[in-house]
Amino acid sequence: MKIGIVGLGLIGGSLGFDFRALGHYVLGISRRPSTCEVAQAKGAVDQASSDLSLLATADVIFICTPLEAIEATVKQLIPHIRDTTMLTDVGSVKASVVQKISPLWPRFIGGHPMAGKEATGIEVAQANLFAQKPYVLTPTANTSERVTATITALVADLDADVHQCDPAAHDRAVAWISHLPKMASAGLIAACLSEPEPALLALAQTFASSGFRDTSRVGGGNPELGWMMAKYNRQEVLRTLSAYRQAMDEVTTLIEESDWDALEALFVQTQQARAKFL
Amino acid sequence: MKIGIVGLGLIGGSLGFDFRALGHYVLGISRRPSTCEVAQAKGAVDQASSDLSLLATADVIFICTPLEAIEATVKQLIPHIRDTTMLTDVGSVKASVVQKISPLWPRFIGGHPMAGKEATGIEVAQANLFAQKPYVLTPTANTSERVTATITALVADLDADVHQCDPAAHDRAVAWISHLPKMASAGLIAACLSEPEPALLALAQTFASSGFRDTSRVGGGNPELGWMMAKYNRQEVLRTLSAYRQAMDEVTTLIEESDWDALEALFVQTQQARAKFL
Repeated sequence: MKIGIVGLGLIGGSLGFDFRALGHYVLGISRRPSTCEVAQAKGAVDQASSDLSLLATADVIFICTPLEAIEATVKQLIPHIRDTTMLTDVGSVKASVVQKISPLWPRFIGGHPMAGKEATGIEVAQANLFAQKPYVLTPTANTSERVTATITALVADLDADVHQCDPAAHDRAVAWISHLPKMASAGLIAACLSEPEPALLALAQTFASSGFRDTSRVGGGNPELGWMMAKYNRQEVLRTLSAYRQAMDEVTTLIEESDWDALEALFVQTQQARAKFL
Repeated sequence: MKIGIVGLGLIGGSLGFDFRALGHYVLGISRRPSTCEVAQAKGAVDQASSDLSLLATADVIFICTPLEAIEATVKQLIPHIRDTTMLTDVGSVKASVVQKISPLWPRFIGGHPMAGKEATGIEVAQANLFAQKPYVLTPTANTSERVTATITALVADLDADVHQCDPAAHDRAVAWISHLPKMASAGLIAACLSEPEPALLALAQTFASSGFRDTSRVGGGNPELGWMMAKYNRQEVLRTLSAYRQAMDEVTTLIEESDWDALEALFVQTQQARAKFL
């Protein structure tokens, strides 16, 4: 199969490695010629170009740009591709993307591979990034079964853990386990920076160990991803932030009231509940 | 040197492995005879007993009980040990411990190895747990130089990254990078559990990937450690929770106001700041 990939960053580049290894012919697009060169030199793509006409003969195209650029990219792409070409994206929000792209291109299905890293860009793209990670597809009542079946099969070949749900359910679920953690983790770093004594902040930085490293990882990750999650999933993110405020207020109240039995019960509950998310 | 360890859990057992490897003779104490047997069988101690009189000839004793039990343990220990024996503890809060133990035993210095795991108990104790991790000692004006020098040398032999500071500064610093992360991470799990639709909660659990795993790790860890941090470092923990509330309110306000430039600036700041904690 001829697979096009628009946007050769961590996700696009990593898809390229896997699809080439599976025997597909991979055509990559990046606005920056230097990224095209790196992608080709690393072996993430067979051919790369900044010109969308490279995708004229693609069977399937993965739009791997940031969320903010998906709609414009598809509009620019349409004049260059065949009617039979199937499109999918990898954005971390689905309802707004599906709503905008479906009317533009009937052979579209939204997708979201839940595989991340702190670093971004073609330099950190790698083989097997998606193996054993959730990869969500969001067909709607209007998605053709052939598109769903083709993209599902392609994505399953990445050894990903493929799931299907409707776009709105996806957005509500990821608000809890991806977007809220990003906000909570960034807020943690921001709070630490509010320490007024520089010597104390320096001591805190020196003492930070694995607990801080893990809790702050996503908050210290890609800034672009953070504000785009919030922009494109605003309502669900605000809903989870409100629930989080209540949960943190409860923790604070228990400590203010020195109610150690209730605080321990809360930690026992979170310990038990976490296992169900892993 | 004869080294006593009271409390054969993750920390006590791991200290035992390392001190034995360094050629010391390790005497272990646990209330539970079964733990004594496991510790001996695993090679974490040379001898183990539930009877504190085993420590009559110890040169140095590490109190590795939970924070809540440190004072009572020292009081029970005193009738059994020599005047020259040096004591230290491994509690994650220092001011309240140092304040209580120093009057009971002049040859005491507070300590805090910042090496954790999700799991607890002798079963997960391991060699080299402290290597390249911060190990904080908190001498005061009243701590004898000989005690400080002896314990510092012992702990440095664990390949730990040894630091000294006063107990209050320790408690303020760890509130930021250890205690607040515990509360923020547990609050995240608790907030997710507030999702009213069971099908949505199940979907969130299915989609949870590395971001949720890392951000929730400490919040899903040892419940006892959580409430004891809060109890024994109550004032500092409440101070950081208040700062955290402000930080999260700021994030929320930026999203409510759709101020994406400011939200991106905040994420850029947290991304840059995190590197200084690692």
